[in-house]
Amino acid sequence: MEIIRSLQNTQIKAAVKLRDRRGRTQQRRTIIDGLREIRRALECDFPIETIYVDPTALAGPEAREFSDMLANVPPASITHVTHEVMAKLAFGERVEGAVAVAKIPEKTLRQVRLPECPLIAVIEQVEKPGNVGAILRTMDAVGANLLISADGRTDRFNPNAIRASLGTIFSVPVVDATSEETIEFLAEQGIQMLAARVDGSVPYSTVDMTQPTALILGSEAHGLSDKWHQAGITNIHLPMNGIADSLNVSTTAAVLLYEALRQRT
Amino acid sequence: MEIIRSLQNTQIKAAVKLRDRRGRTQQRRTIIDGLREIRRALECDFPIETIYVDPTALAGPEAREFSDMLANVPPASITHVTHEVMAKLAFGERVEGAVAVAKIPEKTLRQVRLPECPLIAVIEQVEKPGNVGAILRTMDAVGANLLISADGRTDRFNPNAIRASLGTIFSVPVVDATSEETIEFLAEQGIQMLAARVDGSVPYSTVDMTQPTALILGSEAHGLSDKWHQAGITNIHLPMNGIADSLNVSTTAAVLLYEALRQRT
Repeated sequence: MEIIRSLQNTQIKAAVKLRDRRGRTQQRRTIIDGLREIRRALECDFPIETIYVDPTALAGPEAREFSDMLANVPPASITHVTHEVMAKLAFGERVEGAVAVAKIPEKTLRQVRLPECPLIAVIEQVEKPGNVGAILRTMDAVGANLLISADGRTDRFNPNAIRASLGTIFSVPVVDATSEETIEFLAEQGIQMLAARVDGSVPYSTVDMTQPTALILGSEAHGLSDKWHQAGITNIHLPMNGIADSLNVSTTAAVLLYEALRQRT
Repeated sequence: MEIIRSLQNTQIKAAVKLRDRRGRTQQRRTIIDGLREIRRALECDFPIETIYVDPTALAGPEAREFSDMLANVPPASITHVTHEVMAKLAFGERVEGAVAVAKIPEKTLRQVRLPECPLIAVIEQVEKPGNVGAILRTMDAVGANLLISADGRTDRFNPNAIRASLGTIFSVPVVDATSEETIEFLAEQGIQMLAARVDGSVPYSTVDMTQPTALILGSEAHGLSDKWHQAGITNIHLPMNGIADSLNVSTTAAVLLYEALRQRT
């Protein structure tokens, strides 16, 4: 197999540009670090184009599992590189011996296929990769069907967000939409909207979540916008008995998602 | 009121040393940043010795509330400082116009007073201030009674941990103990132990948490140690239906703590 040895190789230079948001936007691609994350992307049929591998750096049990998996990947999508080229691709990240370049999926709300009784989470203007990643991990765990990022910045597939999700960003469908489009879509589909607010009137655990349900979460700094104050949307809250006045958004998401799973089991 | 103007003042130099773990250990004191955090420490009767205030820097609504509160603090525990001295005390942190020095409480397990039907969390070797802070926030919210840090490093009151907890570290009693001491204590007190493990046999939501309950959580990297594999301890799990094999420890804690509150309400 051919090995790319040149740091000036055009393919390598294009991949390195994916470390910047501008490069991701222009190429509509992203770069995936971490053997576990690449493995999960493959398992989830995420549209990986090329896996760059430095065979000399693959060591240890995780790497063995990874190599076994590579045997089932079409050879055309694997490219070997030297240690120096891998260091350039990894760009200061922990070098694990492989990075992958993948297309960014660009589904719209209308293209999403949902099961009969979906469980959806909506995050409005939640930006921190750590929070989004934590929410995706919980959604993956409870088997939720869709994350709608409402009125968000659209750089969800930046390498930090992928890392923070431990690769669950590949298993949970995520779409971008405005808050207005989201409300219209959910109403049309007959999906109940439960908006989590500190001053919501209904305790979360008294709501029937066995029907098609969307859990709506606002940003930590500002909560939900007024767009979500309207007929047909139920304002729910988690009891707060202490001195603090809010929970982290990923904590709220976890409690609500697991309550839905509990009711549905 | 006297104003400290000298960067060489011995009291100021001692306070600055509290930025280092060694200083905190030697003086058995810590330093609290943030008006909200100081306010919460006072509300919770945390043993604050001195609040250093730069009156010229106190501006905005949060500062007004803070100043009102200072009016009820014994004058002997307020010390005014110049802008330069405050900058030295704040040590690169966002300067909000006040920092406080407080004694570190050193309760042991035997000195804790518990209500009749306590809800306790135990974290074994969980070290990240962000995780401990998130767990404290949820414990505060559900009104849990005690956090036991088992086999942990004992620098819980470092300024980062205080920040990450948003001050809830002052409202939730926390003690250090070994895992062995913790098990002995809980068994003696007749408190059921529910150990969260990925391979725990009992689904968490089928357990009766209305009785005296301790939720036991292991470190993200290693899970719970074998010390918790013994008769009398129930191994519980959260259902995991996705591709990932674990949840963040603060997510697991949130789901369990809110399930306990739900059952108890």
